[in-house]
Amino acid sequence: MNFFEQIKVGDVYALGSHTFGTDEIKSFASRFDPQAFHMDEEAAKLSHFGALCASGWHTASVWMRLMVDFRKAEAEKFRARGEPVAILGPSPGFRDLKWLKPVYVGDTITYQSEITAMRLSQSRADFGLATLFSFGTNQHIAPVISFVSAVFVPRLPQQQ
Amino acid sequence: MNFFEQIKVGDVYALGSHTFGTDEIKSFASRFDPQAFHMDEEAAKLSHFGALCASGWHTASVWMRLMVDFRKAEAEKFRARGEPVAILGPSPGFRDLKWLKPVYVGDTITYQSEITAMRLSQSRADFGLATLFSFGTNQHIAPVISFVSAVFVPRLPQQQ
Repeated sequence: MNFFEQIKVGDVYALGSHTFGTDEIKSFASRFDPQAFHMDEEAAKLSHFGALCASGWHTASVWMRLMVDFRKAEAEKFRARGEPVAILGPSPGFRDLKWLKPVYVGDTITYQSEITAMRLSQSRADFGLATLFSFGTNQHIAPVISFVSAVFVPRLPQQQ
Repeated sequence: MNFFEQIKVGDVYALGSHTFGTDEIKSFASRFDPQAFHMDEEAAKLSHFGALCASGWHTASVWMRLMVDFRKAEAEKFRARGEPVAILGPSPGFRDLKWLKPVYVGDTITYQSEITAMRLSQSRADFGLATLFSFGTNQHIAPVISFVSAVFVPRLPQQQ
Protein backbone atom coordinates (compact mmCIF):
# COMPACT_ATOMS: atom_id res chain seq x y z
CA MET A 1 0.00 0.00 0.00
CA ASN A 2 1.64 3.25 -1.11
CA PHE A 3 0.04 6.17 -2.96
CA PHE A 4 -3.66 6.05 -3.88
CA GLU A 5 -2.85 5.77 -7.59
CA GLN A 6 -0.58 2.77 -6.91
CA ILE A 7 -3.21 0.55 -5.29
CA LYS A 8 -6.38 -0.98 -6.68
CA VAL A 9 -9.47 -2.89 -5.60
CA GLY A 10 -8.54 -6.56 -5.31
CA ASP A 11 -4.99 -5.99 -4.05
CA VAL A 12 -4.29 -8.56 -1.33
CA TYR A 13 -1.80 -8.11 1.49
CA ALA A 14 -0.50 -11.26 3.15
CA LEU A 15 0.45 -9.87 6.53
CA GLY A 16 2.03 -12.97 8.01
CA SER A 17 1.32 -15.01 11.12
CA HIS A 18 1.48 -14.74 14.87
CA THR A 19 1.46 -17.56 17.42
CA PHE A 20 -0.28 -16.59 20.65
CA GLY A 21 1.71 -17.64 23.73
CA THR A 22 0.45 -18.05 27.28
CA ASP A 23 2.45 -15.15 28.71
CA GLU A 24 1.39 -12.59 26.14
CA ILE A 25 -2.27 -13.66 26.39
CA LYS A 26 -2.18 -13.18 30.17
CA SER A 27 -0.14 -9.98 29.91
CA PHE A 28 -2.59 -8.32 27.49
CA ALA A 29 -5.56 -9.53 29.53
CA SER A 30 -4.13 -8.28 32.82
CA ARG A 31 -3.93 -4.78 31.34
CA PHE A 32 -7.03 -4.60 29.21
CA ASP A 33 -9.38 -7.55 29.62
CA PRO A 34 -8.92 -9.20 33.04
CA GLN A 35 -11.61 -11.84 32.68
CA ALA A 36 -10.84 -15.24 34.19
CA PHE A 37 -10.86 -17.13 30.86
CA HIS A 38 -8.06 -14.85 29.55
CA MET A 39 -6.01 -15.01 32.77
CA ASP A 40 -6.21 -18.40 34.44
CA GLU A 41 -6.03 -21.88 32.88
CA GLU A 42 -8.22 -23.58 35.49
CA ALA A 43 -10.95 -20.94 35.39
CA ALA A 44 -10.85 -21.02 31.58
CA LYS A 45 -11.51 -24.78 31.60
CA LEU A 46 -14.79 -24.14 33.42
CA SER A 47 -15.80 -21.26 31.12
CA HIS A 48 -17.75 -21.39 27.86
CA PHE A 49 -14.39 -21.27 26.03
CA GLY A 50 -13.07 -24.45 27.67
CA ALA A 51 -9.43 -23.33 27.73
CA LEU A 52 -7.29 -20.22 28.08
CA CYS A 53 -7.80 -17.93 25.10
CA ALA A 54 -6.76 -14.46 23.98
CA SER A 55 -8.82 -11.32 24.46
CA GLY A 56 -10.55 -10.40 21.23
CA TRP A 57 -8.93 -6.98 21.50
CA HIS A 58 -5.56 -8.73 21.59
CA THR A 59 -6.36 -10.66 18.39
CA ALA A 60 -7.37 -7.40 16.73
CA SER A 61 -4.32 -5.48 17.99
CA VAL A 62 -1.96 -8.12 16.56
CA TRP A 63 -3.48 -7.45 13.12
CA MET A 64 -2.54 -3.78 13.55
CA ARG A 65 1.02 -4.73 14.45
CA LEU A 66 1.43 -6.99 11.42
CA MET A 67 -0.12 -4.35 9.17
CA VAL A 68 2.32 -1.69 10.44
CA ASP A 69 5.26 -4.08 9.98
CA PHE A 70 4.03 -4.90 6.45
CA ARG A 71 3.74 -1.23 5.55
CA LYS A 72 7.22 -0.51 6.87
CA ALA A 73 8.72 -3.36 4.84
CA GLU A 74 6.89 -2.12 1.76
CA ALA A 75 8.08 1.44 2.35
CA GLU A 76 11.66 0.12 2.52
CA LYS A 77 11.25 -1.41 -0.93
CA PHE A 78 9.99 1.84 -2.43
CA ARG A 79 12.81 3.72 -0.71
CA ALA A 80 15.41 1.24 -1.97
CA ARG A 81 14.16 1.85 -5.51
CA GLY A 82 14.43 5.60 -5.01
CA GLU A 83 10.65 6.00 -5.27
CA PRO A 84 8.60 8.32 -3.05
CA VAL A 85 7.06 6.74 0.03
CA ALA A 86 3.50 7.62 1.01
CA ILE A 87 2.76 8.52 4.62
CA LEU A 88 -0.63 6.96 5.26
CA GLY A 89 -3.24 9.08 6.93
CA PRO A 90 -5.28 8.11 9.98
CA SER A 91 -8.00 5.49 10.02
CA PRO A 92 -11.49 6.84 10.66
CA GLY A 93 -12.54 3.50 12.13
CA PHE A 94 -13.79 -0.02 11.61
CA ARG A 95 -17.03 -1.82 11.08
CA ASP A 96 -18.40 -5.32 11.34
CA LEU A 97 -15.65 -6.74 13.51
CA LYS A 98 -16.51 -10.37 14.19
CA TRP A 99 -14.80 -12.65 16.68
CA LEU A 100 -15.67 -15.92 14.99
CA LYS A 101 -13.78 -18.43 17.11
CA PRO A 102 -11.63 -18.29 20.25
CA VAL A 103 -7.86 -17.95 19.84
CA TYR A 104 -6.34 -20.51 22.21
CA VAL A 105 -2.80 -20.74 23.57
CA GLY A 106 -0.50 -21.95 20.81
CA ASP A 107 -2.86 -21.04 17.97
CA THR A 108 -1.11 -19.50 14.97
CA ILE A 109 -3.22 -16.84 13.32
CA THR A 110 -2.47 -15.81 9.73
CA TYR A 111 -3.78 -12.39 8.76
CA GLN A 112 -4.73 -11.05 5.35
CA SER A 113 -6.20 -7.76 4.15
CA GLU A 114 -7.72 -6.96 0.77
CA ILE A 115 -8.71 -3.65 -0.76
CA THR A 116 -12.44 -3.88 -1.42
CA ALA A 117 -13.27 -0.27 -2.28
CA MET A 118 -11.57 3.03 -3.09
CA ARG A 119 -12.79 6.56 -3.47
CA LEU A 120 -11.42 10.08 -3.42
CA SER A 121 -11.77 11.95 -0.15
CA GLN A 122 -14.49 14.57 -0.14
CA SER A 123 -12.84 16.60 2.58
CA ARG A 124 -9.17 16.44 1.54
CA ALA A 125 -8.10 16.78 -2.09
CA ASP A 126 -4.71 15.20 -1.39
CA PHE A 127 -6.16 11.97 -0.02
CA GLY A 128 -8.21 9.00 -1.09
CA LEU A 129 -10.02 6.58 1.17
CA ALA A 130 -9.40 2.84 0.87
CA THR A 131 -11.68 0.20 2.40
CA LEU A 132 -10.08 -3.08 3.45
CA PHE A 133 -11.60 -6.41 4.36
CA SER A 134 -9.29 -8.17 6.81
CA PHE A 135 -9.40 -11.53 8.44
CA GLY A 136 -7.33 -13.96 10.45
CA THR A 137 -7.45 -17.76 10.23
CA ASN A 138 -6.02 -20.29 12.65
CA GLN A 139 -3.82 -23.28 11.83
CA HIS A 140 -6.96 -25.27 10.99
CA ILE A 141 -7.84 -22.65 8.34
CA ALA A 142 -10.83 -21.60 10.44
CA PRO A 143 -11.51 -17.84 10.47
CA VAL A 144 -11.20 -16.38 13.97
CA ILE A 145 -11.61 -12.66 13.28
CA SER A 146 -12.80 -10.49 10.41
CA PHE A 147 -13.52 -6.81 10.00
CA VAL A 148 -13.80 -3.98 7.51
CA SER A 149 -11.57 -0.97 8.00
CA ALA A 150 -10.87 2.28 6.23
CA VAL A 151 -7.71 4.30 5.88
CA PHE A 152 -6.83 7.61 4.27
CA VAL A 153 -4.22 7.09 1.54
CA PRO A 154 -2.32 10.08 0.09
CA ARG A 155 -2.57 10.77 -3.64
CA LEU A 156 0.52 11.06 -5.79
CA PRO A 157 1.46 14.75 -5.68
CA GLN A 158 1.13 15.22 -9.45
CA GLN A 159 -2.36 13.68 -9.47
CA GLN A 160 -4.06 16.03 -7.02
CA MET B 1 -25.40 -5.74 33.83
CA ASN B 2 -26.42 -9.04 35.38
CA PHE B 3 -29.05 -11.48 34.10
CA PHE B 4 -30.98 -10.72 30.91
CA GLU B 5 -34.22 -10.16 32.84
CA GLN B 6 -32.48 -7.63 35.09
CA ILE B 7 -31.38 -5.23 32.36
CA LYS B 8 -33.38 -3.09 29.94
CA VAL B 9 -32.98 -0.91 26.90
CA GLY B 10 -31.94 2.54 28.10
CA ASP B 11 -29.78 1.32 30.99
CA VAL B 12 -26.65 3.47 31.10
CA TYR B 13 -23.33 2.34 32.54
CA ALA B 14 -20.92 5.10 33.60
CA LEU B 15 -17.65 3.22 33.30
CA GLY B 16 -15.33 5.88 34.69
CA SER B 17 -12.31 7.67 33.28
CA HIS B 18 -8.76 6.99 32.26
CA THR B 19 -5.94 9.49 31.75
CA PHE B 20 -3.52 8.44 29.01
CA GLY B 21 0.11 8.84 30.06
CA THR B 22 3.17 9.05 27.82
CA ASP B 23 4.68 5.75 28.96
CA GLU B 24 1.55 3.66 28.47
CA ILE B 25 0.89 5.22 25.05
CA LYS B 26 4.42 4.34 23.92
CA SER B 27 4.28 0.92 25.58
CA PHE B 28 1.05 -0.10 23.83
CA ALA B 29 2.29 1.31 20.52
CA SER B 30 5.63 -0.48 20.72
CA ARG B 31 3.78 -3.80 20.99
CA PHE B 32 0.81 -3.28 18.68
CA ASP B 33 0.96 -0.08 16.67
CA PRO B 34 4.56 1.10 16.22
CA GLN B 35 3.84 4.14 14.09
CA ALA B 36 5.99 7.20 14.71
CA PHE B 37 3.11 9.42 15.92
CA HIS B 38 2.37 6.93 18.73
CA MET B 39 6.03 6.43 19.70
CA ASP B 40 8.05 9.62 19.36
CA GLU B 41 7.14 13.17 20.38
CA GLU B 42 9.22 14.89 17.70
CA ALA B 43 7.94 12.70 14.86
CA ALA B 44 4.39 13.16 16.14
CA LYS B 45 4.76 16.96 15.92
CA LEU B 46 5.42 16.63 12.20
CA SER B 47 2.53 14.19 11.63
CA HIS B 48 -1.12 14.94 10.80
CA PHE B 49 -1.87 14.53 14.52
CA GLY B 50 0.54 17.31 15.61
CA ALA B 51 1.50 15.65 18.91
CA LEU B 52 2.00 12.24 20.50
CA CYS B 53 -1.30 10.39 20.68
CA ALA B 54 -2.58 6.95 21.63
CA SER B 55 -3.19 4.11 19.19
CA GLY B 56 -6.89 3.79 18.45
CA TRP B 57 -6.67 0.16 19.58
CA HIS B 58 -5.34 1.39 22.89
CA THR B 59 -8.31 3.75 23.32
CA ALA B 60 -10.65 0.86 22.52
CA SER B 61 -8.87 -1.61 24.81
CA VAL B 62 -9.15 0.78 27.76
CA TRP B 63 -12.93 0.73 27.31
CA MET B 64 -12.80 -3.07 27.67
CA ARG B 65 -10.77 -2.75 30.86
CA LEU B 66 -13.17 -0.26 32.41
CA MET B 67 -16.15 -2.39 31.36
CA VAL B 68 -14.63 -5.49 32.99
CA ASP B 69 -13.86 -3.53 36.17
CA PHE B 70 -17.40 -2.16 36.18
CA ARG B 71 -18.90 -5.64 35.79
CA LYS B 72 -16.74 -7.00 38.61
CA ALA B 73 -17.80 -4.20 40.95
CA GLU B 74 -21.44 -4.82 40.02
CA ALA B 75 -21.04 -8.57 40.61
CA GLU B 76 -19.65 -7.80 44.07
CA LYS B 77 -22.81 -5.86 44.90
CA PHE B 78 -25.07 -8.73 43.82
CA ARG B 79 -22.88 -11.17 45.75
CA ALA B 80 -22.99 -8.98 48.86
CA ARG B 81 -26.79 -9.00 48.70
CA GLY B 82 -26.78 -12.79 48.39
CA GLU B 83 -28.16 -12.61 44.86
CA PRO B 84 -26.98 -14.84 41.99
CA VAL B 85 -24.28 -13.37 39.76
CA ALA B 86 -24.50 -13.82 36.00
CA ILE B 87 -21.44 -14.96 34.10
CA LEU B 88 -21.59 -13.01 30.87
CA GLY B 89 -21.06 -14.89 27.66
CA PRO B 90 -18.66 -13.97 24.88
CA SER B 91 -19.03 -10.99 22.57
CA PRO B 92 -19.63 -11.86 18.92
CA GLY B 93 -18.06 -8.55 17.87
CA PHE B 94 -18.73 -4.90 17.33
CA ARG B 95 -19.64 -2.56 14.53
CA ASP B 96 -19.25 1.03 13.51
CA LEU B 97 -16.15 1.78 15.57
CA LYS B 98 -15.25 5.41 14.97
CA TRP B 99 -12.09 7.15 16.08
CA LEU B 100 -13.47 10.67 16.13
CA LYS B 101 -10.54 12.62 17.55
CA PRO B 102 -6.97 11.83 18.59
CA VAL B 103 -6.30 10.98 22.24
CA TYR B 104 -3.25 13.03 23.23
CA VAL B 105 -0.89 12.58 26.18
CA GLY B 106 -2.66 13.73 29.33
CA ASP B 107 -6.16 13.48 27.88
CA THR B 108 -8.72 12.04 30.28
CA ILE B 109 -11.29 9.91 28.51
CA THR B 110 -14.61 9.17 30.22
CA TYR B 111 -16.40 6.09 28.89
CA GLN B 112 -20.10 5.28 28.90
CA SER B 113 -22.14 2.38 27.52
CA GLU B 114 -25.88 2.17 27.03
CA ILE B 115 -28.09 -0.78 26.20
CA THR B 116 -29.77 0.07 22.92
CA ALA B 117 -31.36 -3.27 22.00
CA MET B 118 -32.08 -6.67 23.51
CA ARG B 119 -33.32 -9.92 22.09
CA LEU B 120 -33.38 -13.60 23.00
CA SER B 121 -30.64 -15.72 21.47
CA GLN B 122 -31.81 -17.89 18.58
CA SER B 123 -29.03 -20.43 19.10
CA ARG B 124 -28.95 -20.69 22.91
CA ALA B 125 -32.14 -20.81 24.99
CA ASP B 126 -30.26 -19.82 28.16
CA PHE B 127 -28.91 -16.57 26.71
CA GLY B 128 -30.09 -13.24 25.42
CA LEU B 129 -28.12 -10.83 23.27
CA ALA B 130 -27.67 -7.22 24.35
CA THR B 131 -26.53 -4.46 22.02
CA LEU B 132 -24.59 -1.58 23.56
CA PHE B 133 -23.69 1.82 22.21
CA SER B 134 -20.45 2.93 23.83
CA PHE B 135 -18.46 6.11 23.59
CA GLY B 136 -15.59 7.98 25.20
CA THR B 137 -15.30 11.75 25.57
CA ASN B 138 -12.22 13.77 26.44
CA GLN B 139 -11.93 16.47 29.10
CA HIS B 140 -13.33 19.01 26.61
CA ILE B 141 -16.48 16.84 26.31
CA ALA B 142 -15.52 16.01 22.72
CA PRO B 143 -16.23 12.41 21.65
CA VAL B 144 -13.04 10.56 20.71
CA ILE B 145 -14.36 7.03 20.14
CA SER B 146 -17.73 5.38 19.66
CA PHE B 147 -18.89 1.91 18.68
CA VAL B 148 -21.73 -0.57 18.87
CA SER B 149 -21.01 -3.92 20.50
CA ALA B 150 -22.95 -7.02 21.37
CA VAL B 151 -22.67 -9.44 24.27
CA PHE B 152 -24.42 -12.65 25.23
CA VAL B 153 -26.18 -12.24 28.60
CA PRO B 154 -27.43 -15.30 30.52
CA ARG B 155 -31.14 -15.54 31.35
CA LEU B 156 -32.32 -16.04 34.90
CA PRO B 157 -32.47 -19.84 35.36
CA GLN B 158 -36.20 -19.85 36.15
CA GLN B 159 -37.01 -17.79 33.03
CA GLN B 160 -35.50 -20.12 30.42
